[in-house]
Amino acid sequence: MTGRTSAHQEQHLRSSAMIADVVIGMSDGLTVPFALAAGLSGAVANSSLVVTAGIAEIVAGSIAMGLGGYLAGRTEVDHYESERRREAAEVESVPEREKEEVRAVFAEMGLSPALQQTVADELANDKDKWIDFMMKHELGLDEPDPNRATQSAITIGASYVAGGLVPLAPYFFVAQPHQALLYSCAVTLVCLFVFGYFKAKVTGQPPVSGAIKVALIGAAAAAAAFGVARLFNG
Amino acid sequence: MTGRTSAHQEQHLRSSAMIADVVIGMSDGLTVPFALAAGLSGAVANSSLVVTAGIAEIVAGSIAMGLGGYLAGRTEVDHYESERRREAAEVESVPEREKEEVRAVFAEMGLSPALQQTVADELANDKDKWIDFMMKHELGLDEPDPNRATQSAITIGASYVAGGLVPLAPYFFVAQPHQALLYSCAVTLVCLFVFGYFKAKVTGQPPVSGAIKVALIGAAAAAAAFGVARLFNG
Repeated sequence: MTGRTSAHQEQHLRSSAMIADVVIGMSDGLTVPFALAAGLSGAVANSSLVVTAGIAEIVAGSIAMGLGGYLAGRTEVDHYESERRREAAEVESVPEREKEEVRAVFAEMGLSPALQQTVADELANDKDKWIDFMMKHELGLDEPDPNRATQSAITIGASYVAGGLVPLAPYFFVAQPHQALLYSCAVTLVCLFVFGYFKAKVTGQPPVSGAIKVALIGAAAAAAAFGVARLFNG
Repeated sequence: MTGRTSAHQEQHLRSSAMIADVVIGMSDGLTVPFALAAGLSGAVANSSLVVTAGIAEIVAGSIAMGLGGYLAGRTEVDHYESERRREAAEVESVPEREKEEVRAVFAEMGLSPALQQTVADELANDKDKWIDFMMKHELGLDEPDPNRATQSAITIGASYVAGGLVPLAPYFFVAQPHQALLYSCAVTLVCLFVFGYFKAKVTGQPPVSGAIKVALIGAAAAAAAFGVARLFNG
């Protein structure tokens, strides 16, 4: 594609499913353990407790997100299959009703009644195509990839762990939690900014404002956790 | 609707957006603070530290999820509007290309070439309908509600807090963390089971197996966090 033609090109970026999973896991992984560590830094005397709590949170969060994502993926596959069986049965048992539903979809697209009828009749000639059409355009369901659930779970969970270790790392090396917090803020805010930049890039948003947004969410969560933990511990 | 006709009815349940937000917030809210508290219970001597860490986590998690949800909602609105402007400009500047894209959508639906042409010509008569069609069926984008972002953020955040206070509550009253953990497990697993039951109901899944799945995720996360925190603290 030359620069000349690319101006006329549809540039609707679609990030791959795996990048989307990394973004999901890392987004929360960088933010929540960061804020938890910040909150505890205002309330405990020793970094080792922050490490213990942080590790527990990373384990909990990565399992909740990863396993949750896995089961959601499996549920989506089951749901799609049961809806497809239902549509297939309806196409057999009440074809006129189903044809009426096809016409309704095209009516909503803005086609004239005569053309709705023609299109519905043509689609009804091939039952597989007809059922596929109902799944996608009446129910808005895309066929899910049955193998994606496992890979998605692992990617999300691993990204959460990778993200969560960033804010926690300073607490491994600096015994005084207030001081470790300063390093943690510095390293995590830089990572949030870089991460937000790339996240905005892959989702087709303005990257700098995306980076600022992500860093601000992290900072807000950490500041609030610090303040509230202090209050409860004071 | 009588029982007689309901057998022939399409029963594709669509949970409302607000229920979906409650499910999102409460699902993580019940699970992650539960597992964090369980993990810390194996590593610290006093429940007050579990309370401090738990509160910090609830604040962090609710802000990350709520504010994250808010910004994701705003981004979706911006994205929709910018894509719509792009489609509108393309319909003006390269109408033949765009008509070709309409034909491609109908080709994918399984229509014959002659009918693809007829349908594309008819849609092109009304530019608004044409653009709407491109947004929905070529790009797969539904028009987002611009007011939903705020309400969604509040619902998700509040549900996370409500969910997170359940596993934490026993630690407020029982000073010995191991003993508080027993109460926390009992009350949280019951809540996860009930929550999983209703979550499955509103998403049209088998409720009992849904309830078991949700309770198992929570138990797995808590057990893993307990084990790993012990290991790190041992």
